Amino acid sequence: MPRLVEYAEAPPEVRAVFDEIKSARGVPDVNNFWKALAVDPPTLRRTWDSLRQVMAPGALDPLTKEMLYLAASMAAGCAYCTASHGAAARARGMTEAQFGELLAVVGMAAETNRLAEALRVPVDPAFD
Amino acid sequence: MPRLVEYAEAPPEVRAVFDEIKSARGVPDVNNFWKALAVDPPTLRRTWDSLRQVMAPGALDPLTKEMLYLAASMAAGCAYCTASHGAAARARGMTEAQFGELLAVVGMAAETNRLAEALRVPVDPAFD
Amino acid sequence: MPRLVEYAEAPPEVRAVFDEIKSARGVPDVNNFWKALAVDPPTLRRTWDSLRQVMAPGALDPLTKEMLYLAASMAAGCAYCTASHGAAARARGMTEAQFGELLAVVGMAAETNRLAEALRVPVDPAFD
Amino acid sequence: MPRLVEYAEAPPEVRAVFDEIKSARGVPDVNNFWKALAVDPPTLRRTWDSLRQVMAPGALDPLTKEMLYLAASMAAGCAYCTASHGAAARARGMTEAQFGELLAVVGMAAETNRLAEALRVPVDPAFD
Amino acid sequence: MPRLVEYAEAPPEVRAVFDEIKSARGVPDVNNFWKALAVDPPTLRRTWDSLRQVMAPGALDPLTKEMLYLAASMAAGCAYCTASHGAAARARGMTEAQFGELLAVVGMAAETNRLAEALRVPVDPAFD
Amino acid sequence: MPRLVEYAEAPPEVRAVFDEIKSARGVPDVNNFWKALAVDPPTLRRTWDSLRQVMAPGALDPLTKEMLYLAASMAAGCAYCTASHGAAARARGMTEAQFGELLAVVGMAAETNRLAEALRVPVDPAFD
Repeated sequence: MPRLVEYAEAPPEVRAVFDEIKSARGVPDVNNFWKALAVDPPTLRRTWDSLRQVMAPGALDPLTKEMLYLAASMAAGCAYCTASHGAAARARGMTEAQFGELLAVVGMAAETNRLAEALRVPVDPAFD
Repeated sequence: MPRLVEYAEAPPEVRAVFDEIKSARGVPDVNNFWKALAVDPPTLRRTWDSLRQVMAPGALDPLTKEMLYLAASMAAGCAYCTASHGAAARARGMTEAQFGELLAVVGMAAETNRLAEALRVPVDPAFD
Repeated sequence: MPRLVEYAEAPPEVRAVFDEIKSARGVPDVNNFWKALAVDPPTLRRTWDSLRQVMAPGALDPLTKEMLYLAASMAAGCAYCTASHGAAARARGMTEAQFGELLAVVGMAAETNRLAEALRVPVDPAFD
Repeated sequence: MPRLVEYAEAPPEVRAVFDEIKSARGVPDVNNFWKALAVDPPTLRRTWDSLRQVMAPGALDPLTKEMLYLAASMAAGCAYCTASHGAAARARGMTEAQFGELLAVVGMAAETNRLAEALRVPVDPAFD
Repeated sequence: MPRLVEYAEAPPEVRAVFDEIKSARGVPDVNNFWKALAVDPPTLRRTWDSLRQVMAPGALDPLTKEMLYLAASMAAGCAYCTASHGAAARARGMTEAQFGELLAVVGMAAETNRLAEALRVPVDPAFD
Repeated sequence: MPRLVEYAEAPPEVRAVFDEIKSARGVPDVNNFWKALAVDPPTLRRTWDSLRQVMAPGALDPLTKEMLYLAASMAAGCAYCTASHGAAARARGMTEAQFGELLAVVGMAAETNRLAEALRVPVDPAFD
């Protein structure tokens, strides 16, 4: 099994990030993703800082952002991310009916993405 | 250049789908994607029927569905689909600020997707 | 534009491969793929030798092999390969009706591939 | 583990699809893919209807279609689909020698797909 | 064509990033990537800050980092990134012989990646 | 579980390749990848011959080649290959600090690859 860095054995710069995550999310421990990323503390720090900035409320609300993250992760075929952002979206209020429709959209996109590329469809001038 | 089937030369079953698309969208002509897909009339018919069903308003509103489609297409690296669904989302009201945040989410997802898979992070039991 | 190595300027080890390709296929010149690959002569040689071996008639006939190559290239989203192996499959007898069905299969596979991964479906014991 | 909907707990519209699959395939139970997809009944119905239509005998015979599905699934890196369509192709008569050659074609396609894209090879005019 | 933000029309926060890039690289203008990313100034700023940090000399020298970036971009099939990081690696000293070997490694990786996944090879305990 | 061909049950042409791998690497047994690939002896032979040629010392040293292989495998999302080439790179001297920086480069590449494609950035003329 890959290495996961637990809080008790983590160096101070890792603990600092773990503490920020736990505080921001109100959880007693961080997810496995962060424990795995802690093998490289600068990447852990940069990823957390970027994620916090990108997922902050803005022109899009937090639930929409989580669903976009989930759709992109499904399209990229990342099993872990599909599971983690599926849980995060549900925690922000995504219903099972919304999940079903998101799944349907991602499936259709996968099919039409391949068809458009397989046929080398030229971009319509009106799109720009 | 790949073959595009124009209305004037299309067989009746293709014209029927083109007519439905033009009517549903209120446009004078269909996009290149449909003209390319018309090389196989059964796939054209099935894809249009599926797309219409999947993108209909439901538990998710039409703009959110378009943005999910756009995010999935970006994650899959389909240039045509990124252009066409970017235009469709803007037509449904996506602002440039919303597009910028969607882009940021897709970029972060791509990075963390690769990191999670590269480190083979085990799925947390709490996600299911 | 990327660099393409033409026969007139090619070193002897590149000309040798080009000659073999032209002879095996009965064509006056090689495709752009081989001219581009010639920037690294050992890769050109190895790729041609492997391709010739893999695509030789065996338990599968040459047309089926070309269609499998085309389907895999579509699934991987390679525009050049989709064009080149589409042409090669047609040269071996693929009809437009067969191409249409191949396209439909690749599209369905893309959709169900993403759905199966998004839902993290466990492999049925009966499959092995 | 992700949720799988079993027949005993399924709503009527899910049972109807399950019954059609079992009847069409002559099997006592459906595969995990369908049980997972049942979390969204409309997607289950649409996917089954599309798959049945796409995989029906036509210009290509059922074994060739299954092998194309398998090749596309391998190229897309879907482990579940590789297992399920590998089993389906064997059930339709694919020999181990044919499987070995299919595997070799998919491997070669993956390599040349990347090389063609990495070198940004321009499409030869003769391909269209 | 997609929108590119030129310096003359750029808002102050975009000009600030452009100035940093030009200064760090000693070039009179930034590449198209940065002009395109400028449609979302926060993403432009975050991407430049992250890239500068990640690509700084450390345990790996700058040429090795550029070649790793190039190999990853080739594997992901990004034509623009393959071109831009190919140029960057050459500017840092990558020879044509080194490029040829990098290309060969990426091609082999693509082939064995697909084979390993298609065969669902279990990870050897010794790897961890 | 997928089929793995063990030495004791392997036909002579498979044993010959296994013997070469064990001898070249000084190991008592081959990895699961080779045992799985042995279901198709010609693919086993061709893959081993190609890999040995591609990974031989040349313009790039063996450690750099292994790290490029690892980066490409991470970018392609192959879990097995990430594990096996991670172990191989460590065996050739890759430090944990180098691994961390490689991981960071692959993550950044994934993000900027998607951004460049999503924005359809035109290739700068200066890159060729």
